[in-house]
Amino acid sequence: MTDELRYHVDGELVPASEAAVSVDDRGFRYGDAAFETLRAYGDTVFAWDAHVERLEETCAALSLDHGLSSADLRGRIDETLSGNGLSDAYVRLSITRGVQPGKLTPHPDVGPTVVVYIKALPRGGLEGDPVWDGPAAVRTVETRRLPDEAIPASAKTHNYLNGILARAELAGSTGSVDAPDEALMLDLDDSVAEGATSNLFFVRDGTLHTPSTDGPVLPGITRDIVLELARECDLPLEEGRYGIDDVREADEAFLTNRTWELRPVGTVDGVEIGGGPVTARLSRLYDERVESACYRT
Amino acid sequence: MTDELRYHVDGELVPASEAAVSVDDRGFRYGDAAFETLRAYGDTVFAWDAHVERLEETCAALSLDHGLSSADLRGRIDETLSGNGLSDAYVRLSITRGVQPGKLTPHPDVGPTVVVYIKALPRGGLEGDPVWDGPAAVRTVETRRLPDEAIPASAKTHNYLNGILARAELAGSTGSVDAPDEALMLDLDDSVAEGATSNLFFVRDGTLHTPSTDGPVLPGITRDIVLELARECDLPLEEGRYGIDDVREADEAFLTNRTWELRPVGTVDGVEIGGGPVTARLSRLYDERVESACYRT
Repeated sequence: MTDELRYHVDGELVPASEAAVSVDDRGFRYGDAAFETLRAYGDTVFAWDAHVERLEETCAALSLDHGLSSADLRGRIDETLSGNGLSDAYVRLSITRGVQPGKLTPHPDVGPTVVVYIKALPRGGLEGDPVWDGPAAVRTVETRRLPDEAIPASAKTHNYLNGILARAELAGSTGSVDAPDEALMLDLDDSVAEGATSNLFFVRDGTLHTPSTDGPVLPGITRDIVLELARECDLPLEEGRYGIDDVREADEAFLTNRTWELRPVGTVDGVEIGGGPVTARLSRLYDERVESACYRT
Repeated sequence: MTDELRYHVDGELVPASEAAVSVDDRGFRYGDAAFETLRAYGDTVFAWDAHVERLEETCAALSLDHGLSSADLRGRIDETLSGNGLSDAYVRLSITRGVQPGKLTPHPDVGPTVVVYIKALPRGGLEGDPVWDGPAAVRTVETRRLPDEAIPASAKTHNYLNGILARAELAGSTGSVDAPDEALMLDLDDSVAEGATSNLFFVRDGTLHTPSTDGPVLPGITRDIVLELARECDLPLEEGRYGIDDVREADEAFLTNRTWELRPVGTVDGVEIGGGPVTARLSRLYDERVESACYRT
């Protein structure tokens, strides 16, 4: 894979270095765009239906009627995978409101800009390797998670400065060398919300806990799958509102997102936590799910 | 002016229809960019020093060290004006964090992307015409202004979905025909904050009021100039926290932003307000300021 990657932009595969959008595209001017981060394992996009559903929720929140079918979008992703000769990959699908006349107020007629990004990732599933180097060092930051009243947390959009400001605090704390891996954000009521790009789980006294999506928490697809796996194996489970001390005193903790899958938390604010039997069990069940959904089809 | 406009992208003037940025530019991926909206009157950028100062505040909030001098940026704007043969114009200056390795966490080494947009506007000053059609119809929306704890309101960035969601509510209310002109947002404590692209002023019993920047309110440059003009003519003045009823019961109200300058408010939520003697006086003083700063130099 020494060839340059090719991205899919508005229906065509183009070298990544030439892939561009108009500066008048609302995705650039305003971050007025929806996206999904996906993983392909063995040529198959994992949990595609869940991604389509969440994408539609984001677009509904933005009143962005892109008019493209799920099959059309999937076709673009499949072309991107095959066009790059990649079976195991990170994929990002972005849909913007395109270029529109006028200024801020969105028009109902949308000529969307559709971009598929791609990057090679290791194999997943039972024989796979994690993409992360080790347990995550997590630090609580001052930046608070955006409240739903301003921008719904369930919308996954190109307005990502909230997470960037959170991550920038980490870099600042250590001069960017040995910076923590993830920034943990509280909501405005001091409840734990989520990481800049991940959902948080922790285990106390045998019960799995995760912040409820009643708060400003992205309903992560990996999060949903972990909840489903926990239910299937009758693991005691609670979604709720938690303070940071609940996390610091946990027996185990892990982060989830599409690329990391389940990543154990080594420390929170310097307090040792680590993975453990529950984290290991759920990781194994997740790998089995990936294996059976993607590599055995 | 039938020729196509040319924008200034990374040091070169290019036809607007060809002006593009990489899809990997953080300005596109995340809205990770600062911008300023400016007006040129008679070849002169109005209030340039104030714009530079606010741009630097935005970049400081984003830890975006672009490394470009004020003279360099001004040179790009002047080239854009002369290259398009425009003396009176809307100008937008955007600076992004550019393309960086890695994902969300920003790197300190920035190769910024700099875009100067331009569009013809009518002459301003004493002989000028307003760019708006008439007094603004304003409606209060459900979307709340982003709190400072999540993203500082003083930062003017490409993360503009908060305002877009507010404006989208207006379009939804009337099927986009005869939609109100501006969406007025409250903060999370029900105090009036600002419009999607404007600051609000109102007059009651001879005193000029405007929401304080202690709340999540952009310190608009037109707002600052209006406050300065009011002080210069000893107009009673108060910056504070106000409920929506304070606005609805006002004797006069107007909105300010760079392109609108001062625009009288016709109605708020259907309640008639209108301009009046204070609005007219401040508009005249503003026009005089523009005239002397830009047309008589």
